[in-house]
Amino acid sequence: MKVPKANAVALPFPSRNDKANTGGRVYGVDVLIARKFLQAIGEPSLRMVLWDGKEIAPSNSTPAVGMVIRNRATLWRLLTNPLLHFGDDYCAGRIEVEGGLVAFMETVYRAMAQTPNFRRTPDPAAYRRNQPKLNSLSGAKKNIHHHYDIGNAFYELWLDAEMLYTCAYFPDPAASLEDAQIAKMDLVCRKLRLQKGQTVVEAGCGWGALARYMARRYGVRVKAYNISREQIAYARERAKAEGLEGQVEYMEDDYRNITGTYDAFVSVGMLEHVGPDHYRELGAVIDRSLREEGLGLIHTIGQNSPTPMSPWFLKRIFPGSYPPTLREMMALFEPWEFTVLDVENLRLHYAKTCEHWLERFEQNHDRVREMFDECFIRAWRLYLSGCIANFTIGALQLFQVVFSRPTNNLVPLTRSHLTAPPGKS
Amino acid sequence: MKVPKANAVALPFPSRNDKANTGGRVYGVDVLIARKFLQAIGEPSLRMVLWDGKEIAPSNSTPAVGMVIRNRATLWRLLTNPLLHFGDDYCAGRIEVEGGLVAFMETVYRAMAQTPNFRRTPDPAAYRRNQPKLNSLSGAKKNIHHHYDIGNAFYELWLDAEMLYTCAYFPDPAASLEDAQIAKMDLVCRKLRLQKGQTVVEAGCGWGALARYMARRYGVRVKAYNISREQIAYARERAKAEGLEGQVEYMEDDYRNITGTYDAFVSVGMLEHVGPDHYRELGAVIDRSLREEGLGLIHTIGQNSPTPMSPWFLKRIFPGSYPPTLREMMALFEPWEFTVLDVENLRLHYAKTCEHWLERFEQNHDRVREMFDECFIRAWRLYLSGCIANFTIGALQLFQVVFSRPTNNLVPLTRSHLTAPPGKS
Repeated sequence: MKVPKANAVALPFPSRNDKANTGGRVYGVDVLIARKFLQAIGEPSLRMVLWDGKEIAPSNSTPAVGMVIRNRATLWRLLTNPLLHFGDDYCAGRIEVEGGLVAFMETVYRAMAQTPNFRRTPDPAAYRRNQPKLNSLSGAKKNIHHHYDIGNAFYELWLDAEMLYTCAYFPDPAASLEDAQIAKMDLVCRKLRLQKGQTVVEAGCGWGALARYMARRYGVRVKAYNISREQIAYARERAKAEGLEGQVEYMEDDYRNITGTYDAFVSVGMLEHVGPDHYRELGAVIDRSLREEGLGLIHTIGQNSPTPMSPWFLKRIFPGSYPPTLREMMALFEPWEFTVLDVENLRLHYAKTCEHWLERFEQNHDRVREMFDECFIRAWRLYLSGCIANFTIGALQLFQVVFSRPTNNLVPLTRSHLTAPPGKS
Repeated sequence: MKVPKANAVALPFPSRNDKANTGGRVYGVDVLIARKFLQAIGEPSLRMVLWDGKEIAPSNSTPAVGMVIRNRATLWRLLTNPLLHFGDDYCAGRIEVEGGLVAFMETVYRAMAQTPNFRRTPDPAAYRRNQPKLNSLSGAKKNIHHHYDIGNAFYELWLDAEMLYTCAYFPDPAASLEDAQIAKMDLVCRKLRLQKGQTVVEAGCGWGALARYMARRYGVRVKAYNISREQIAYARERAKAEGLEGQVEYMEDDYRNITGTYDAFVSVGMLEHVGPDHYRELGAVIDRSLREEGLGLIHTIGQNSPTPMSPWFLKRIFPGSYPPTLREMMALFEPWEFTVLDVENLRLHYAKTCEHWLERFEQNHDRVREMFDECFIRAWRLYLSGCIANFTIGALQLFQVVFSRPTNNLVPLTRSHLTAPPGKS
């Protein structure tokens, strides 16, 4: 499928007029601003090069990373809202990074975490700053369309063959992305103790890989919901091609419209888009969907303490998204007395997953370039690099939570079912 | 060690004068009160027999359990505060139970959970009803003394040989209590990835079994805190007898007075006595005690939603105790950005553990009778039976939570270290 060249992240640059400040002489006040900026972000060990070649670097170390700033306006903007403007100006090519984008971001994030301005201090209303109100039925559709409907062909270039756009599971750090995604799906199935003939409902099914895997390998029937039109179309096509039409039903609909009762409820990578204001609503959906002896699993990006996402990320990449803390997630479970059986944190698996994605993305640069402009490519590179950095430094988590009804005494006594050899069918 | 006969749970009965109402005729109003009571607790399927033999039972079923009420005052009291008075009147022998105490309590609890009066509705201040303010430095000492300092010889009669008074882990449901307690200790050690030569601090060490096990089997040095004088004395004696004095140091002191830094922080069965008002304080202790690459483990009884303990349990068994929800537990971790790595719910293991305890307790009835009066024995039987019932019906949970600092990238990638064969040393 050929996707028309599009600028899906809707960057305002480079149309904006910065010519007046391009190049030219560096004044004393520019150096002052540069130093002020570096101070504000916690004095990371980096080399800053200004537009005339002037270098600002720590005197006591040789930094492994650096940034080049192409003009005065860019430098001055950084001081006003670094989290937003760094992203936009990097994408527009007015900032270049030396020493690798991931290493650069880890360095900067680590320094920022030590400063009063940017320290991740708990903020009970953090998620409200992420526009969660937008995740109403209509708002959610718009937000999801923004990211997921920019062309399946684009995602095919850098995701695995099954098109999983969520954290993989690497039983061995050297596993391939393909194997790690299959291992993740199998881990989810084992955590849910799926048995042949059971029924499963999936909330937020992406391109439908997990639903197909469950049906094929565990012999269950799956009803899978998603509001991304392009993903659902792709999922249906593949289910048909694989002869799974009778077992898997893909619904182009919101999780709030789930009907029926099931032996298992599963949601992998949707909660990030739900928003804590809607957790109770999602909990009610689970409560009316799960059979008495059913098991549920929620797999989501999370945080250790409630802090808002960067404004650039929210504006350009995932509007309306918010990774909850475990405490915030409990709003899904407490009102219905669901019992949390098992929580596993797969943070480092997500860093590795994103590394695979970035590597494939870069390998396919030429083909991506046929679809999108350089600005989009730089935005995507920044997004994936930022994810690697955030999972690596521990600013983001990946929680897999298994739960049941409180009265379910058929829950597994031990975790021995999790280590069964994968690939049983 | 011979312990003087004592009434440690300080029951007010049977000194209270109920003679006026003992026996005598059952009037119509008594039957009305009985029916009102059964209605109030959700019409459990039970047979009620009043003091003159009058039987009140559901017409449409043959109940498997029943209660005999010895006099009018007891019946009428039940209506005013059933949760408190059932306990006290059962202990005083003014209520007898038929069909097994555990089965009886499960039946009653299940019915109560369905009624508006007793349904477990979330209550954000539930723990305040459990007098957590009492758990100040001096209050905690008094509360702990109440339960744990009633004589080591008593606990020796019904705990395992290592004297563990916390949930065991049954890799096989048929495992003995002794084996299950060793399996639990080994599971804790494996979750903490203990390595020879490391240092561990334990908050709330009971009779010291885990500290000794860690030292003996994993070659670590342990500093273990407890404010129960009798437990500490016992722990020191055993460590000396086992030649572990150089490796294990038992401190008769509060967790708030922990000093030093350690490779691991562990607390098994103490959090129930801390009270949510003090979780932040405990979190601060962990934060100052745990090395950068250390791991921590908290093992605690918990709940699915915040509800207060029964007033009888709080008054007679564990003053100041409160089993937190996972959400409430996060107050330990969020302020310091600790990363939750793993949560395991061992609820059904605790039901089984309590079954073992109750069985041994009953087997040793004669010896317990030499130490305590019948009132105490009945209180203890009710307490252990109530625990079995609560864990079985899902009103109580057992959470084992593993955590690290957010920046610790040496955390285990998978759970393969948990299934290593036990008994390595």
